[in-house]
Amino acid sequence: MTKIKAYAADNKDANLKPLEIERRDPLKDDVKIDILYCGVCHSDLHQVRNDWKNSAYPVVPGHEIIGKVLEVGSGVTKFKVGDLVGVGCLVDSCQTCSACKDDLEQFCENGATFTYNSKDKHSGGHTFGGYSENVTVNKEFVLKVPENLDPKAAAPLLCAGITTYSPLAHWGVKKGDKVGVIGLGGLGHMGIKFAHAMGAHTVMITTSPSKSEDAKKLGADEVLISKDEAQMNEHANSFDFLLNTIPVGHDMNPYAALLKRDATMVIVGAVEPLDPLHGGSLIMGRKSIAGSLIGGLKETQEMLDFCGKHNVVSDIEMIDIQNINDAYDRLQKSDVKYRFVIDMKSLKDS
Amino acid sequence: MTKIKAYAADNKDANLKPLEIERRDPLKDDVKIDILYCGVCHSDLHQVRNDWKNSAYPVVPGHEIIGKVLEVGSGVTKFKVGDLVGVGCLVDSCQTCSACKDDLEQFCENGATFTYNSKDKHSGGHTFGGYSENVTVNKEFVLKVPENLDPKAAAPLLCAGITTYSPLAHWGVKKGDKVGVIGLGGLGHMGIKFAHAMGAHTVMITTSPSKSEDAKKLGADEVLISKDEAQMNEHANSFDFLLNTIPVGHDMNPYAALLKRDATMVIVGAVEPLDPLHGGSLIMGRKSIAGSLIGGLKETQEMLDFCGKHNVVSDIEMIDIQNINDAYDRLQKSDVKYRFVIDMKSLKDS
Repeated sequence: MTKIKAYAADNKDANLKPLEIERRDPLKDDVKIDILYCGVCHSDLHQVRNDWKNSAYPVVPGHEIIGKVLEVGSGVTKFKVGDLVGVGCLVDSCQTCSACKDDLEQFCENGATFTYNSKDKHSGGHTFGGYSENVTVNKEFVLKVPENLDPKAAAPLLCAGITTYSPLAHWGVKKGDKVGVIGLGGLGHMGIKFAHAMGAHTVMITTSPSKSEDAKKLGADEVLISKDEAQMNEHANSFDFLLNTIPVGHDMNPYAALLKRDATMVIVGAVEPLDPLHGGSLIMGRKSIAGSLIGGLKETQEMLDFCGKHNVVSDIEMIDIQNINDAYDRLQKSDVKYRFVIDMKSLKDS
Repeated sequence: MTKIKAYAADNKDANLKPLEIERRDPLKDDVKIDILYCGVCHSDLHQVRNDWKNSAYPVVPGHEIIGKVLEVGSGVTKFKVGDLVGVGCLVDSCQTCSACKDDLEQFCENGATFTYNSKDKHSGGHTFGGYSENVTVNKEFVLKVPENLDPKAAAPLLCAGITTYSPLAHWGVKKGDKVGVIGLGGLGHMGIKFAHAMGAHTVMITTSPSKSEDAKKLGADEVLISKDEAQMNEHANSFDFLLNTIPVGHDMNPYAALLKRDATMVIVGAVEPLDPLHGGSLIMGRKSIAGSLIGGLKETQEMLDFCGKHNVVSDIEMIDIQNINDAYDRLQKSDVKYRFVIDMKSLKDS
């Protein structure tokens, strides 16, 4: 084990502050990664504040990690020192259950190991995320990052990217489909970019007319203001697919009304109770509502390769680790376009 | 137009009573049907009592119609006088929209004509259902009933049958799948019969341990008591498909927990608001909740042919039309195993 610098929260009410943590030295199948950049996901904030009632302190958040390979174990041939790599929300899983065999490690039946706040098989404690100098990860959970992408702006692909790419890909969104992306935040802005890159007629669905201009810059062909009943009626029964990124409970019925017969709306943001859904909203038109959680490793690599090919990255605002608490305050007010990314040099130099 | 005997409700608080109505004489493409039996669906009761706020009085309910062909128009070759036929929830649609072309007339984009309480293109008034001596229907909406089935017990196939068969068929339930049918009433008892006949390992999911014996007689391999948390936990993440026939609002979260990864629960009963669904119930395991409404004419014929082949009919209790109001009272208390069917001879002889 080696002691390294990190930023952590000690309890749910605490600000993040410097803390020394221990990382394992690379095992045979491990890759040790020098962390260059780490995106700031809303989940980081939830975990720090114990919103999901499962936080184990100290919490070192961060699961949108971009770095360079520092060292590889003897069993690693796929990566070499100096490679540009990424680590997302997962750092381990059983690799043997039916979910893992189906390349859906996020649903590992024996319990996936998440990048932070998850039981750590190696240390016996819990995992520490990317707000740290480096990280040691099993090779199966390390991703290649296309060299043509700006590595800073690629960081959020590891969570916000795969979370939105996966449902679009899994439900087969294709050229010419009419796809709606509901909510314009960290997830929504990636949803628009992906749907657009897949060739869909992409509609930003938002409560805020002020977001129209930005949405169009990001790739939206149209903007639909969800508070405008007349506009909503015009678009009724017309969408092939809806990606719902709203991060809190809300009324899904008006959105279900937008779906074509046999079409699906996928929820990726709201893990909490939603307002009462009318059975009739689904029965009339044989419509579906589904959920989706990040993506497996194979699909995450596909997503990164897709981004390399289509030159898709996030819109980001760079911060130093010393400003993380202010960034959290702004994040909570949705005051970011569209993702904070920490320059980890600020930690190493401190 | 010809005057015939029927039973109707004059207003939402009225009992049903005899009323003379007019039926059109057969047009070129029409089939005139002598009604032998008519099933009693919960929708009949909803429409009579104006629960959906759209009832046009007088309401003549009935959309589970079995009869013999009395007369055919000059354009009809598929049916001849004396054929055993059925009419379900639909008697007309535009036949030209994308839904109709996809054999999903129930979702006709120009508005399907339902068997009762729907705008009637021919009379200018509204349609009258099967609680009547005879009915005249466009040939495309008349179904052949296999001669090996008991015609009385075949009546409920036209609504309860297709409502449960359609989602099982559409979502591809097959031999060896583990299928749960939630709720044991008119719909649920058909769901069990169909899932069993399709070769699925069929589980009746009910709040009432008292229904276990019946469920097994109907074809359930297992009974799962939904109030028993330990039993529910044992079955977590194990179902390939759930058919949810609960007719009122309820909490779907415990049922969603039963679904396997990527599996779907289909709602066919509750057209009203459901209790708040947790986003996490779908996100964890990429699960879906969908709705389904009866079925198109092609699939309804397939269902009847399937019933002929597998000898599937409903469990019924025969009544005379004069007892319909008592039957409604009992229906509201779920005091029927499992469907009332009216012997229409009682109307003709009156």
